[in-house]
Amino acid sequence: MNSFGQRFRFTTFGESHGVALGVIVDGVPAGIKIDLDFIQSEMDRRKPGKSEVETGRKESDTIQILSGVFENEAGDLVSTGTSIAMVLFNENQRSKDYSNVKDLFRPGHADFTYFNKYGIRDYRGGGRSSARETSARVAAGAIAKLLLKELDIEVQSGLLEIGGIKSENLDFNYAKEQKNILFTLDKNKYNEQLQAVQKAKESHDSIGGVVLVKALNVPIGLGEPMYHKLDGEIASIMMGLNAVKAVEIGDGCEASKSTGSKNNDQITSKGFSTNHSGGILGGISNGDDIVVKVYFKPTPSIFVEQQTINTNNEDIKYKLQGRHDPCVAIRGSVVCESQLAIVLADMVLLNTTSKIENIKKIYKQ
Amino acid sequence: MNSFGQRFRFTTFGESHGVALGVIVDGVPAGIKIDLDFIQSEMDRRKPGKSEVETGRKESDTIQILSGVFENEAGDLVSTGTSIAMVLFNENQRSKDYSNVKDLFRPGHADFTYFNKYGIRDYRGGGRSSARETSARVAAGAIAKLLLKELDIEVQSGLLEIGGIKSENLDFNYAKEQKNILFTLDKNKYNEQLQAVQKAKESHDSIGGVVLVKALNVPIGLGEPMYHKLDGEIASIMMGLNAVKAVEIGDGCEASKSTGSKNNDQITSKGFSTNHSGGILGGISNGDDIVVKVYFKPTPSIFVEQQTINTNNEDIKYKLQGRHDPCVAIRGSVVCESQLAIVLADMVLLNTTSKIENIKKIYKQ
Amino acid sequence: MNSFGQRFRFTTFGESHGVALGVIVDGVPAGIKIDLDFIQSEMDRRKPGKSEVETGRKESDTIQILSGVFENEAGDLVSTGTSIAMVLFNENQRSKDYSNVKDLFRPGHADFTYFNKYGIRDYRGGGRSSARETSARVAAGAIAKLLLKELDIEVQSGLLEIGGIKSENLDFNYAKEQKNILFTLDKNKYNEQLQAVQKAKESHDSIGGVVLVKALNVPIGLGEPMYHKLDGEIASIMMGLNAVKAVEIGDGCEASKSTGSKNNDQITSKGFSTNHSGGILGGISNGDDIVVKVYFKPTPSIFVEQQTINTNNEDIKYKLQGRHDPCVAIRGSVVCESQLAIVLADMVLLNTTSKIENIKKIYKQ
Amino acid sequence: MNSFGQRFRFTTFGESHGVALGVIVDGVPAGIKIDLDFIQSEMDRRKPGKSEVETGRKESDTIQILSGVFENEAGDLVSTGTSIAMVLFNENQRSKDYSNVKDLFRPGHADFTYFNKYGIRDYRGGGRSSARETSARVAAGAIAKLLLKELDIEVQSGLLEIGGIKSENLDFNYAKEQKNILFTLDKNKYNEQLQAVQKAKESHDSIGGVVLVKALNVPIGLGEPMYHKLDGEIASIMMGLNAVKAVEIGDGCEASKSTGSKNNDQITSKGFSTNHSGGILGGISNGDDIVVKVYFKPTPSIFVEQQTINTNNEDIKYKLQGRHDPCVAIRGSVVCESQLAIVLADMVLLNTTSKIENIKKIYKQ
Repeated sequence: MNSFGQRFRFTTFGESHGVALGVIVDGVPAGIKIDLDFIQSEMDRRKPGKSEVETGRKESDTIQILSGVFENEAGDLVSTGTSIAMVLFNENQRSKDYSNVKDLFRPGHADFTYFNKYGIRDYRGGGRSSARETSARVAAGAIAKLLLKELDIEVQSGLLEIGGIKSENLDFNYAKEQKNILFTLDKNKYNEQLQAVQKAKESHDSIGGVVLVKALNVPIGLGEPMYHKLDGEIASIMMGLNAVKAVEIGDGCEASKSTGSKNNDQITSKGFSTNHSGGILGGISNGDDIVVKVYFKPTPSIFVEQQTINTNNEDIKYKLQGRHDPCVAIRGSVVCESQLAIVLADMVLLNTTSKIENIKKIYKQ
Repeated sequence: MNSFGQRFRFTTFGESHGVALGVIVDGVPAGIKIDLDFIQSEMDRRKPGKSEVETGRKESDTIQILSGVFENEAGDLVSTGTSIAMVLFNENQRSKDYSNVKDLFRPGHADFTYFNKYGIRDYRGGGRSSARETSARVAAGAIAKLLLKELDIEVQSGLLEIGGIKSENLDFNYAKEQKNILFTLDKNKYNEQLQAVQKAKESHDSIGGVVLVKALNVPIGLGEPMYHKLDGEIASIMMGLNAVKAVEIGDGCEASKSTGSKNNDQITSKGFSTNHSGGILGGISNGDDIVVKVYFKPTPSIFVEQQTINTNNEDIKYKLQGRHDPCVAIRGSVVCESQLAIVLADMVLLNTTSKIENIKKIYKQ
Repeated sequence: MNSFGQRFRFTTFGESHGVALGVIVDGVPAGIKIDLDFIQSEMDRRKPGKSEVETGRKESDTIQILSGVFENEAGDLVSTGTSIAMVLFNENQRSKDYSNVKDLFRPGHADFTYFNKYGIRDYRGGGRSSARETSARVAAGAIAKLLLKELDIEVQSGLLEIGGIKSENLDFNYAKEQKNILFTLDKNKYNEQLQAVQKAKESHDSIGGVVLVKALNVPIGLGEPMYHKLDGEIASIMMGLNAVKAVEIGDGCEASKSTGSKNNDQITSKGFSTNHSGGILGGISNGDDIVVKVYFKPTPSIFVEQQTINTNNEDIKYKLQGRHDPCVAIRGSVVCESQLAIVLADMVLLNTTSKIENIKKIYKQ
Repeated sequence: MNSFGQRFRFTTFGESHGVALGVIVDGVPAGIKIDLDFIQSEMDRRKPGKSEVETGRKESDTIQILSGVFENEAGDLVSTGTSIAMVLFNENQRSKDYSNVKDLFRPGHADFTYFNKYGIRDYRGGGRSSARETSARVAAGAIAKLLLKELDIEVQSGLLEIGGIKSENLDFNYAKEQKNILFTLDKNKYNEQLQAVQKAKESHDSIGGVVLVKALNVPIGLGEPMYHKLDGEIASIMMGLNAVKAVEIGDGCEASKSTGSKNNDQITSKGFSTNHSGGILGGISNGDDIVVKVYFKPTPSIFVEQQTINTNNEDIKYKLQGRHDPCVAIRGSVVCESQLAIVLADMVLLNTTSKIENIKKIYKQ
C-alpha cells in the first residue's frame, strides 16, 4: 500500500528522522533521457529552509540514483526499462528533540491514528506520516516529468489562495520566479499573502491555502474508465497528500451551484469554447488544459497550548516546540505539480493499448 | 481498469442500452448473511422513474445473484468466500431513440472523449459512460453494507445542497423518508429545493447539487498509508462518479481559510472535542464520524439548443430530446452512500493485518 | 483473487451447479473483430460429453456476450474498449445427486480445504473448485486469441502423454481433428492411449496425462521482469488449473540433467540453432516458438472404495458415484491453450510501453 | 512489474554492477521482531565466493535497513507497519571486465531479449537479469521468515539432484551444515555430486540441478482461488528465478503417470495417509507439508567457444571469460527457500479475511 500507479508505478519508504527516504519507480519506458540536474532541481524546489515562510529544518535533500539508468551509445544517461531507485539520506535528524512528544498525540496530526492502528510508531517528527515523505513523491514526479517532456506535455503550479486571500491575475511564470517565496500566482497579492503568513507565524499559529495545478498540451484520451478515471486518480493522489482536505476539478464546487446551460462547455471544430470541466469529460482528457485545485488545511503544528491525551489516555495540556512551516500549502505547490505529472505519466502509458490500431503500429511495422 | 478495491474488490460491466449490467464482487468473507430483499431495496432506492424529479426511463432494476452464496446449516443464505456475481438485465432499451446522437458529441458528456480514445462508442444513452453504470456500484455497495453490518458500522447520506440552496438542520432520518423525493437533509428547505428543481426542469435546463455522506461507529485504524489512505480512496471513488467535480473530507475547502488553532480537533480522554477533520487523520480513521461532501455538476443533458460538432468535426447546432434527471445529485445520494460503504469494507479487510497480534488471534487460538 | 492478468485481465465467477458461470474480460483494446462463432467453437472444444472418454454430464455451454461489443461503421461486431462480460447458464444441475457428498470430503479433491478455509462450501460437484470453472477461462481465452490473431500470433495444443504413453511424432494438426477424441499429437499412439483410458474407465479408476502447448510467431520482447516474466506467468496460470501438478518450459526437467554446452541455444544471424529454452530467455520471449508442458494428475473422482472423513472428523469408507472424465488431461488440452493465449495477450499489451520510441509512435504521429 | 505479492509485497531494484541492489517490503504487520543478525545470516547463505563450487566474485553482501523498524517499549527492534527498505551496495564492480561482452549476446543469457525489448541494456554481468538480483529476494525472504516464525511455520531446502545424481536419503539438517558446500540432502551422495560439479568446472562447462523445498507446520487454508492459489503463486515465483525451467508440486510429473486410486491421498481423522499432493488441494494448503521441486538448467556462462551474434546481427565465435558458478542450483537452494517463505507470508495475510468470524475476532473483542 506504499505504491501508486498502474504502469508508471512508484513505491516509497522512509521516516522523517530515519536513516533515509526513497522511492522505486517502476514501468519507466527505456530510452528516456535522465537529466540528473533537473531531478535535483525539483528536489530543491521542495526542500525545507529556503525562506522565512518555511520550516527551519536544514536538509540538502541530495538525491542519488541507484539503478535503472545507463549510458546509451551517444553517451547520454537514459532509462533502461528496469526499476529506478532513488534515495535521500536524512542529515538533520536531531532525534532528541522529539522525546517530549514520545508519549502524547499532537492534535491535528496522525500520531493518534498510527499508534492505534499499529500499536507502535516512530514518534520522531511524525515518522512515516511526516510531510517529509513527499520528497520521495517529488523524486518520482521528476521522472514522470522527464517522460512527459518526451511528449511535450507540461505541468505547472502555484498558490491560488493563502489564508483566504485569493490570487486573481494568475501567472504561472511568476509562480516559478525564485524570489517569489510563496509561489503565488498573483504578484499583486504577494504582499498581502506574505503578511498573512507572517502574522500567523508571529502569533505562533498557522494558516491554510489552495494550490492550483495545470497541465498543458495533454493528448485527448487519457484516463481509464471506470475506476481509474483521470479525475479519480488525480483526486486519490492529491487527497492523500498531508494536510489536503478537498480536491476540485475545473470549476469544482462552483459547478454544483450552476445550471447545465451555463456549465456545459460548447464544442466547436476548433475546440471547446470554455473549460468549466477542467479538461476532463467522463474521466478522460478532452485535449483542453487539465485544471485542479487542491485545498490544504493549516499546518497542525502550532506553538500555542493545546489539549490532548497521552498514550495512557490521560488528559494533558501541551505546547509544541520546534520548527514548522506556518503554511504547508506553500511547499505543497511543487508536490501537487509532481503528483499530477505522475498521474499523467501513468495514463499516457495505460492509454497506449486503447485501440488495436495503436498496438499494430508497434508490432506490425 | 473496471475494478476497484484491494481486498473487497468489485469489477463491473455493462452499457446503458446493452443486454445487461452487472458486477462481480470478490474478496467477500464467507459466512455473511446475504439478505436478498435488502439488496433489491438498495437497487430500488437508486432506480429511475420514482418521482417527477427523476428521469422518466422505467426500469425494474431487478437484481439476480448468479454465484457465491449458499445455504448454511441453519438454512440462511450466506456468502461462501467465492466471487459473487450479480446481474441486471436492461428492459427499456429503446435503442432507436438514440440514432439522432449517433454522429455527434453531446456537450458536457463523454461522447467526445470515448470516441477519440477508442475510435468507436456505443452511442445509445452514453453507453458505458452512462450514469446507469452506477446501478452495478450500488449492488456492490449493498454487499459492502451487509459486511459492515456484521461490525455495526453504518453509512448514511442525503442532499446538503440543491441548486445552491443549502440544507441547514441536517436530519439523516428525514433523508431516508420515502416521500422525501429529494433525499434532502432539511425538511425546512424541502419546498425551496423542490421548486429549484422544478424550475430547472420547466426551463429545459438542469441544476447541480451537493451530497453529504457519513459513516458512524467506524473503528479506529481504517486506511492504508501512503497511497491507499482512507481519504484518498474515498476521493478516488467519489470523483469517479458521473458528474462529480469536487470532493471534501470534513471541513474541506473551508479548512483552507482557517487557522491551526481553530482547525485542530483537540483530543480528550473521551474523544475528539470537534470533528473538523471528518474523522480522518493521516489518512486513517480516528473513531469519529467519517464526513464526506460530494459536489455534482448540473446534468449535462438539457433540452435547449447547444453548439457542438459531429464525428466529421463539422460545427452544428443541436437540441437534445429524451428523458433525463434535472438534478443528478438527487439519485447520486444513494450512490455516494454505497461508494463509502465499499471503501470502508475494503479498509476493514485490509486493516486486519496491521499488527502481528491480530494475526495470532486467528492462527494461534 | 478471482482475477488474472495486468492489462488483459479477466475475472470469473460461478459454481459447478449454481445458476451460471461467467467472466469479465477487461483491458481489451477497441476495434478487435469479435467473432461469436469462433468463441462458441472454443467453448464447444472444451464442453463435456463429446465422447466416451469424457464425463457424461451434458451441457450446451452456450455463451452469451452481455457487454463491451458494438457494431462498427462497416457493420462488424467489434470490441469497444469497455469490459466484455460473458455468461454461461448451467442447464444440467441435478443438485440432488450431490446430497451424498454433503457431509464428507472426497479424497484428492478440494472439499476438505474449502470447508476448512471458508467454514462453508457449495458441495454440489465441487462448487467453485470444479473444473467446470475452466469454461470461463476458455471464454476469456477466446477473446485473447482474437486479439493475438490481429498480430498473427497462433497458439496450439495437444496431448503429449496419456497414462504414461508418450506421443512421439508430434502433429498439432492431427490434435485438432474432430475424430481424434484424445486430442493426441501422435496418430500412431492413438490406439494405445485410447486403450489406456478405456482400461482406467473400466476398472473404475483414472489416469493422468501431459499436455503440450505451443505458440508460434511470437514477437521478441514479451515478458515483464522481474516478477511478471513470461515463464513465471505461464507457470502461475497453468499450475492453478485443476489437477495440474507440474509445469515445464522448453526442455524443463531434462535441462537439469544437461550441461551448459549442450543446453545453451547457439545464436545465429538467422535465429537460434536449437530451442531448448522453449522460446524464453530471462523471462522474455526470444522470437522462437514458446513451448510449455503441463502435467495433470489422474482425475481424483474414481469409483472404488476410498477412506475419508466426514465433517465431524469421523473416519468413513466411501464410494463415489456419478459421471467423470477418466483422464482430465484430455479436455485440459484446450484449456491450457486458452491460458497461454491469455498470458500472451497480456504480455503483448504490457510490452507496448517498453521503449519511449514505441510511445512516440502513438502520440506523436 | 518489479513487485511480487498481494499483501506481503516486495519491490526490488538494482543491477549486477550498478551502485546498489535493494528491496522495499510492504505490508509487514507491525510488532514483528526484526533480528538483524538473522537477516544478515540469510544473506550470507546466498552470497557468492563461499566455496570452490561458487563464483569467485567476492561480495560481503552487507544488508542495511533504511526504514520501517523502530524500538518498542521493551527495547526490541520491531516492524512498525510501514514499508521496510533494505539496501546492498555493490563492492566488487569491476565494470571493465565486461567491455568485451558489450556488443554481443551470450547464449543462454537474457542479453538478446533485453536488448531487443528495451533497445538498451546494462551489459555488465547481465545487469538487471543477473542472478545477483536474487540477493534482494533473499532479503525480503528473511523478513517473511520472521513473520512465519511468529506463527511457528518453518521452511527448509536442499539439493535433491546435481548433474543428474539424485539424493535419496533426504536430511534437511544435513543440507544446512556449513561444511556441506553443496547444500545436498544426502550425505551419501555428497562426494559423487561434488565430483560432478568439479568435473563440469574443469571442463569449462556447467551442470544443472534440482532443489527441494519444504514448509512445515503450515495452517490449513492458505491459498486464494482462483488465480492466486498457493501452488500457482509458488510456480510463478519459482519459475521466475534465473535458470529455472520446471516446477513441481508434490509428486509433480510422476503424478501424470499414476492412477487415481494410487495418487489420491486418503483422509483419516488423524490426517492424510500419504502426501502425493505436496500439501495442496484445490490450490489451498491442507495442513500437510508443502513440497516443491525446482529444476535449474546448467549455468549458461561456460568457458568453451560458442556461436552467437553481435548487436549488428553478425555471426561471431565467442569464448567467455570471468567467474561463474558451475552449478547455479547450489546457491539457488536458499533462494528457493526464501521464495517459498514469501509466498506463505503473503498467503497467511490474505487468508485472515476468509471468514467473517475471523474478522469479528479482531474488531469485536
